[in-house]
Amino acid sequence: MQVRLEPAVVRGFRFAGVAAGLRSEAGRKDLGIIVADAPIAAAGVFTTSRVKAAPVIVAQEHLRGGRLQAVAANSGSANCFTGKAGMRLARDSCAALAGTLRCDTRLIAPCSTGVIGHLYDLGKYRAGIADAAAALEPEGLSDFASAIMTTDTHAKVASTTAGVGRTRVSIAGCAKGAGMIEPRMATMLAFIVTDAALHPPQLRTVLKNVLPRSFNAITVDGDMSTNDTLLLMASGAAATGTLSGHNLQNLEKAIGGVATALARELVRDGEGASKLVTVEVCGARSEADANKIARSIANSPLVKTAFFGCDPNFGRIAMAAGKAGVNFEPERLDVSLAGIKIARRGALNVEVLAEAAARMREREFGLTLDLKMGKASARVTTCDLSYGYVKINAEYTT
Amino acid sequence: MQVRLEPAVVRGFRFAGVAAGLRSEAGRKDLGIIVADAPIAAAGVFTTSRVKAAPVIVAQEHLRGGRLQAVAANSGSANCFTGKAGMRLARDSCAALAGTLRCDTRLIAPCSTGVIGHLYDLGKYRAGIADAAAALEPEGLSDFASAIMTTDTHAKVASTTAGVGRTRVSIAGCAKGAGMIEPRMATMLAFIVTDAALHPPQLRTVLKNVLPRSFNAITVDGDMSTNDTLLLMASGAAATGTLSGHNLQNLEKAIGGVATALARELVRDGEGASKLVTVEVCGARSEADANKIARSIANSPLVKTAFFGCDPNFGRIAMAAGKAGVNFEPERLDVSLAGIKIARRGALNVEVLAEAAARMREREFGLTLDLKMGKASARVTTCDLSYGYVKINAEYTT
Repeated sequence: MQVRLEPAVVRGFRFAGVAAGLRSEAGRKDLGIIVADAPIAAAGVFTTSRVKAAPVIVAQEHLRGGRLQAVAANSGSANCFTGKAGMRLARDSCAALAGTLRCDTRLIAPCSTGVIGHLYDLGKYRAGIADAAAALEPEGLSDFASAIMTTDTHAKVASTTAGVGRTRVSIAGCAKGAGMIEPRMATMLAFIVTDAALHPPQLRTVLKNVLPRSFNAITVDGDMSTNDTLLLMASGAAATGTLSGHNLQNLEKAIGGVATALARELVRDGEGASKLVTVEVCGARSEADANKIARSIANSPLVKTAFFGCDPNFGRIAMAAGKAGVNFEPERLDVSLAGIKIARRGALNVEVLAEAAARMREREFGLTLDLKMGKASARVTTCDLSYGYVKINAEYTT
Repeated sequence: MQVRLEPAVVRGFRFAGVAAGLRSEAGRKDLGIIVADAPIAAAGVFTTSRVKAAPVIVAQEHLRGGRLQAVAANSGSANCFTGKAGMRLARDSCAALAGTLRCDTRLIAPCSTGVIGHLYDLGKYRAGIADAAAALEPEGLSDFASAIMTTDTHAKVASTTAGVGRTRVSIAGCAKGAGMIEPRMATMLAFIVTDAALHPPQLRTVLKNVLPRSFNAITVDGDMSTNDTLLLMASGAAATGTLSGHNLQNLEKAIGGVATALARELVRDGEGASKLVTVEVCGARSEADANKIARSIANSPLVKTAFFGCDPNFGRIAMAAGKAGVNFEPERLDVSLAGIKIARRGALNVEVLAEAAARMREREFGLTLDLKMGKASARVTTCDLSYGYVKINAEYTT
């Protein structure tokens, strides 16, 4: 299976992205729609934040039936912390697209991203929906992906194919999000579509299986969004018949590949990020232990600034591991950084630090801790903390 | 009670700080000692990290008897993750000072701060101890405080007095630490001495009582050090007799005042910090709930960069509150920032944002969330996240 960071045509779906004037930057795409030819199977996972945006609440409600015909996603406003007016706006937004498509409003999933606490203009939104519907095309995924960007520097798309019996099915997806990212349950906004045929319960199982190693295994800044949404839709247009057994596994693997590629793209485009670092903790007593330590390291501002400074700072790595609340023996710990073993059995090897520092100049490297306490492991992908992060977030304003 | 950010003489104690050559910067003070006239009552709290520095382990061991005669604290090396050699070094360091003072080695508490994974030179340390012993004086607290600085921009000292019966007792303290700070159990290095008379169990109770609102109520970067240590020593030289009742309460209040002043100074001097922000959450169902939300906000990189940018970013505050894992009703929430009510019952008041932004230019302001769910509250003091933090931590190296 090869995952490409490119859009693809997926039978049964059309996409569009237009400039509806919802953002302050004139002419920038800010409203995207994904439309299936008919109501199809769909599943989603959402933020676990106590503060959920209105579109998240509405999308969860609409997904209870396990079917969708379309997604309407806008940037420029998160429609979060907007009270009853925000709920009305999310429902009216669904109605606008449902009216155009002549389908039930409950077949639309709304998604919003952008500034919290502000409403967008419904009149402009409705006009944008009409424009988007007129612009729908099977090759429109990149336009859709562009319309949902906020501080992202580029649109993130990924696609692959999978063999299912004698049929080749397609999977394509896109995602947005560069800050306020530590999803745990879902990422900011991500959409994956396939022309394979799956029931809603199967889609939910696939999401549950692919999440831990894709969107839930990344962090940019440890902040969880109020709008995190991942939707998976299956049109069945490849006429595979409903999948099971080996074929279902193959498809799940392909969907997992697209999800992981999109998740890594989110981190690579993390706010101000110049490096992609995969933190792996192995030799742990349990996966939960390994995950706690990996997350503690991946979210530590001191470790992340050391990555930015190409500093093989063993002390900060040890500090972040130590504060994770997991029982381990410091004197057993082996640490490899950018392929160099900088510590063995708890003792730093000062002689290799210069080489490790040189290798940290690469845009991508790994950090591995072997606790030698057991057999479980976990992996979290993170980025460095740079001047750019501060610049973006001290200037991007309400 | 007035707490001054100044040193004071406390009967029964002498202090010194000298340049022993343990740091790379020649001539910089790096070794400090606090010496009591005789063995006296002492208590301490330490890091809860799984990775404890050697001096922390030795100091905990020595404090089991509840008595100390001296503290030896160095910067330049944390003597952490240094295995058996580090443990030997910490014990030899105690022995050096014990030999000079002709007291039992177990009456010395060792403390170290600086780079993790490296040992300091014992020969230089011994020579430094001899110099420091010769330089001891009752007015030496500032010299001691200077010797334990790392990325701190200035020494932090505080002092006050308390009326105990007809006697006036003195309390003085100092602290260091500007990064790797979210103590939970203690701060990096802090020392408080008094000439009142207290038993070791009383000292432990006083520490337990003053911690939650002083060192445990601050955060700079959410990172907990491997070396966090707070020591409290009582010489009894004010001849008050052992304290109880109202007098003990008075003393505890004064010690709490010194601890809180030092804790705030740590945050004010947080790495790259330009603002001191007190986050208060009230109207919570429990103090634990209030504390979780206050900490989530105080540690959020997105909130901290907004502080730096003087951006009254209600959305990020709401996001950080929402992700704290506490049940509350967003539509009841009131938020005041720098004295301006920016949100009432979950709705943002856009009209006052410009004024709030202007007030955020002050070096010090408050952020208050009223959940209206109950009567409990909690307070955490934090600082902003600036270019300076990234600069200091991308350049301060192993």
